[in-house]
Amino acid sequence: MPLTTDAKGVYPIAPTPFFDDGRIDTASIDRLVDFYQSCGCTGITVLGQLGEAPKLTHVESVGIVAQVVRRARALPVVVGVSAPGFAAMRELSRDAMDRGAAGVMIAPPNTLRTDDQVAGYYRQAAEAIGADVPFVLQDYPLTFSVQITPAVVRRIVNENPSCVMLKHEDWPGLEKISTLREFERDGSMRHIAILCGNGGLFLDLEMGRGADGANTGYCFPDMLCDVVRLSSEGRRQEAHDLFDAHLPLLRYEQQPGAGLAARKYVLMRRGLLTSMAQRKPAAPLSARAREEVDLLLERLARHDPRARLRT
Amino acid sequence: MPLTTDAKGVYPIAPTPFFDDGRIDTASIDRLVDFYQSCGCTGITVLGQLGEAPKLTHVESVGIVAQVVRRARALPVVVGVSAPGFAAMRELSRDAMDRGAAGVMIAPPNTLRTDDQVAGYYRQAAEAIGADVPFVLQDYPLTFSVQITPAVVRRIVNENPSCVMLKHEDWPGLEKISTLREFERDGSMRHIAILCGNGGLFLDLEMGRGADGANTGYCFPDMLCDVVRLSSEGRRQEAHDLFDAHLPLLRYEQQPGAGLAARKYVLMRRGLLTSMAQRKPAAPLSARAREEVDLLLERLARHDPRARLRT
Amino acid sequence: MPLTTDAKGVYPIAPTPFFDDGRIDTASIDRLVDFYQSCGCTGITVLGQLGEAPKLTHVESVGIVAQVVRRARALPVVVGVSAPGFAAMRELSRDAMDRGAAGVMIAPPNTLRTDDQVAGYYRQAAEAIGADVPFVLQDYPLTFSVQITPAVVRRIVNENPSCVMLKHEDWPGLEKISTLREFERDGSMRHIAILCGNGGLFLDLEMGRGADGANTGYCFPDMLCDVVRLSSEGRRQEAHDLFDAHLPLLRYEQQPGAGLAARKYVLMRRGLLTSMAQRKPAAPLSARAREEVDLLLERLARHDPRARLRT
Amino acid sequence: MPLTTDAKGVYPIAPTPFFDDGRIDTASIDRLVDFYQSCGCTGITVLGQLGEAPKLTHVESVGIVAQVVRRARALPVVVGVSAPGFAAMRELSRDAMDRGAAGVMIAPPNTLRTDDQVAGYYRQAAEAIGADVPFVLQDYPLTFSVQITPAVVRRIVNENPSCVMLKHEDWPGLEKISTLREFERDGSMRHIAILCGNGGLFLDLEMGRGADGANTGYCFPDMLCDVVRLSSEGRRQEAHDLFDAHLPLLRYEQQPGAGLAARKYVLMRRGLLTSMAQRKPAAPLSARAREEVDLLLERLARHDPRARLRT
Repeated sequence: MPLTTDAKGVYPIAPTPFFDDGRIDTASIDRLVDFYQSCGCTGITVLGQLGEAPKLTHVESVGIVAQVVRRARALPVVVGVSAPGFAAMRELSRDAMDRGAAGVMIAPPNTLRTDDQVAGYYRQAAEAIGADVPFVLQDYPLTFSVQITPAVVRRIVNENPSCVMLKHEDWPGLEKISTLREFERDGSMRHIAILCGNGGLFLDLEMGRGADGANTGYCFPDMLCDVVRLSSEGRRQEAHDLFDAHLPLLRYEQQPGAGLAARKYVLMRRGLLTSMAQRKPAAPLSARAREEVDLLLERLARHDPRARLRT
Repeated sequence: MPLTTDAKGVYPIAPTPFFDDGRIDTASIDRLVDFYQSCGCTGITVLGQLGEAPKLTHVESVGIVAQVVRRARALPVVVGVSAPGFAAMRELSRDAMDRGAAGVMIAPPNTLRTDDQVAGYYRQAAEAIGADVPFVLQDYPLTFSVQITPAVVRRIVNENPSCVMLKHEDWPGLEKISTLREFERDGSMRHIAILCGNGGLFLDLEMGRGADGANTGYCFPDMLCDVVRLSSEGRRQEAHDLFDAHLPLLRYEQQPGAGLAARKYVLMRRGLLTSMAQRKPAAPLSARAREEVDLLLERLARHDPRARLRT
Repeated sequence: MPLTTDAKGVYPIAPTPFFDDGRIDTASIDRLVDFYQSCGCTGITVLGQLGEAPKLTHVESVGIVAQVVRRARALPVVVGVSAPGFAAMRELSRDAMDRGAAGVMIAPPNTLRTDDQVAGYYRQAAEAIGADVPFVLQDYPLTFSVQITPAVVRRIVNENPSCVMLKHEDWPGLEKISTLREFERDGSMRHIAILCGNGGLFLDLEMGRGADGANTGYCFPDMLCDVVRLSSEGRRQEAHDLFDAHLPLLRYEQQPGAGLAARKYVLMRRGLLTSMAQRKPAAPLSARAREEVDLLLERLARHDPRARLRT
Repeated sequence: MPLTTDAKGVYPIAPTPFFDDGRIDTASIDRLVDFYQSCGCTGITVLGQLGEAPKLTHVESVGIVAQVVRRARALPVVVGVSAPGFAAMRELSRDAMDRGAAGVMIAPPNTLRTDDQVAGYYRQAAEAIGADVPFVLQDYPLTFSVQITPAVVRRIVNENPSCVMLKHEDWPGLEKISTLREFERDGSMRHIAILCGNGGLFLDLEMGRGADGANTGYCFPDMLCDVVRLSSEGRRQEAHDLFDAHLPLLRYEQQPGAGLAARKYVLMRRGLLTSMAQRKPAAPLSARAREEVDLLLERLARHDPRARLRT
């Protein structure tokens, strides 16, 4: 079933599990997918930036898509297809959709500068992958150095019917959500789903601005699900209480580059990954950093029993 | 008294108070300085990035330095002198030192790329301001796009005897502190003070890595003082408890560009600033953002009575 | 007399002459200005990027403006006032206009990304310097990393009546001139002067696209004047012949960073500068580079007698 | 036969010929290769930046390598394998070497900043493709925004025995060649081949600095061969005369982004390409630009009969 503008809830950015020797760990993939299902996730995004996508061959990438789609059954699977050229993007996109993906996600190459360049890029990308493939616009200036104003998001949405979701991770970005929702209200932009990334650092407040959920890989997706649910039910203080308890660890994990090691470490401690290995190039977790994560987990466990992990 | 490598504690980055019409609000400057004194700050940094330095004329800048130095009495005052050329840097530096400043702070221009360019820039800057002027190396890649490795910091420190402090705000930067302290232990770098910026986002953990304190403008410098003190006394869990209570607001304020409005708003609500006005160009605080800050303050007040503010 | 949209011909970017010890060489300034007059220049731009403006104090900058205005008599003098903040920009702008400058030139800070940011910056800058001060929009992505599309140039021109000239140095930029002139023809943009920079590397063709002349510091401004004149008279092949003879040297001088040393060296050999010294930071001319420039001059002298210089 | 540090002469960057409908034009590939052979080229580089590599699928890329290797017989073929991740780089590299390529070329991703990051990247890349695969270090800051100092080039060369050639296109870069050759003389760096790119804009002078030849795609590779030969024979003025005659057109073709259209247009007019088509995204040649190229060709034909082309 294709991804639509009705998407909401939590789409975790799935890490790619490796064994210590670099081979893909398919058992951990299944465990992860089952876990996402069980804790209330409404979709899954694979081969994102933090899914170490550039370290995978095309064949490996397609294999992961096929496995996750199969295992996820009803859950829609979104596939990161960002690439330096449209040929590779089209190829991965087609192969992913053929395996049952619900849609793809496209980040802008970091050479784009002007509004016309950004809008033009998405027009050409949408044409390259085919008008029948729903896509997610990834807006992450912190990593990609490309700034997309609300007006340019509107232009992309209006020019490309197949754009169905915004992975919102502008920073700061709260006003952007409000502006986009205002565009919808004043009729100048059709409705799209807005799911928030940027490590979840502002999820508590983004929900109040009109976001539909989260699209990030924090090591406690179960917390993300709860916060989104509590917010939707209007239980705002409870949502904040839970979120705030996680914020020290979440902030730690959101460190550019260094955070993935912490994320995989916690997922390993949670019994979901066999190994915390990353393929090269990788920034490993120092002994000191591990102690810090352990401390943050321990402190978190006082508020959230899910953080009580065996050492 | 000149700034030395023994600096520690909290050097807040002072905002520049303006009236709504853009004039400098000298009464608020005095109030701020008195407040910094009273809550245990060990120094003050003026004319930093978030002090809106580029919006001030040279005469205004020197006037602020003179007032703060006079009011701060025993407290050392560090002056941001970053400039596009050495002529302006030398001029402001000389004028500031003549008014009694303890040292200056220099950020790298965002055109620097290679290690040699960075090291060469600081050599020339140190020569330009004069070898007798102690300076703080500001390392803030998130804002300046210049990456300074630990080895380059070491080179700058070793090549320039007048470099006495690092304003550490690399991100992620925990390992950098550990590496620099390791350089000191192995004798390859002389000791310097390391005070942490980046909005204080990792202050709780930076203290454990060997930082000497904070050098940032968070709207509760009193909290920063407490966290630094508790950490120094080995009362780590208490430090974390206090820090964690502030983290939701602190994170809000650390948003690049948008955060200053929140910071000035809270300082106004705390009775320290007459107005929250910024000079142009400025990103104002939307009604929505103000509500969010109010909410975060209210929630904070449950843990820290200092956040109980009149509306 | 204020700069207007009728500007045409050649406005050389004047270098700032220094003695070997770094003092400003006022006698060379007079000689340069006289030379510009004598060879047919129609204006002069001082304190540009290659005028080493950031290495001058405010007092020095204003002194140079005053001297050049006095000496240039009828020739309009444009003053580079780019600065990291509007306070310094306003101050230099006001002081320059008070000394008789015809207008100012403003380059965008290299942090601007989106169309709105660029247009907003010029709106605020125009307001800061005052609506009565004519300004030149400097569009030089190679150096400033800011890309300004034709539509954004149009927006700036239409939003700011005091914008009278474009210093065109986009690269590649031929189509941009055509597009802007097309905007004028279709009535969507009022007429502005377009003078070309970028070292003059495409001046031969830019004239055919509708440029009004040159605004660059090549060491043979007399050649630039001839090429602009020949082009205006429709003597295109002659213009190309002269231009092509200079192209090997012109290309040499256009090297980012390194070119200024070659420019000052040739101007010294032409008897216009006492010394080729630059203030720090500077990239000096190596012995090898000097030989290359000598060779290019020697070869040029076969086509243009003005290049027959005493050694 | 593998590429070695003895490489010299001219390795043109081959464009990828397409039909108007986007299909690869294999007949034109053969014609190009035959032409390169006939005019004295000593090698061929395919799938470079201006070979539109990112617009090709993996299968297409490997097909082109196989065809060019077969047709080129004795000529060594170098294959651009730059990729956002090591998995794709390794795959293309292996497949290319299996088809008989002599080596590969690797450009740095534009996120690299510090010296350690650059050196580390090449260490990991060399390991990824295998120590038995000779590689060319592409140093092109104008396009990739990565600055590699001579000392870092030396480090890469010394750390990676499989690094055999530098595609030198730093800009300005003349001093870099001199410095690297000095490193060889003082024994601190082993010898490598240096072939120059950057459109050939400084080839006349680069030969005098110690370059071994050209590695660029200018539409008259026959001229590049002559200039390299004349320079090697010590006939310097003749080399300059020929080079200078081409400089106006060469400069035109070197325009970032826009130049490829001009290059393909001239190659089509020379009878080597069936079509001047590029795959998307592409900047087409405007009518006006075509006239300019025609004019430059016509003027060139007065000095070089090879530029007398049928219209």
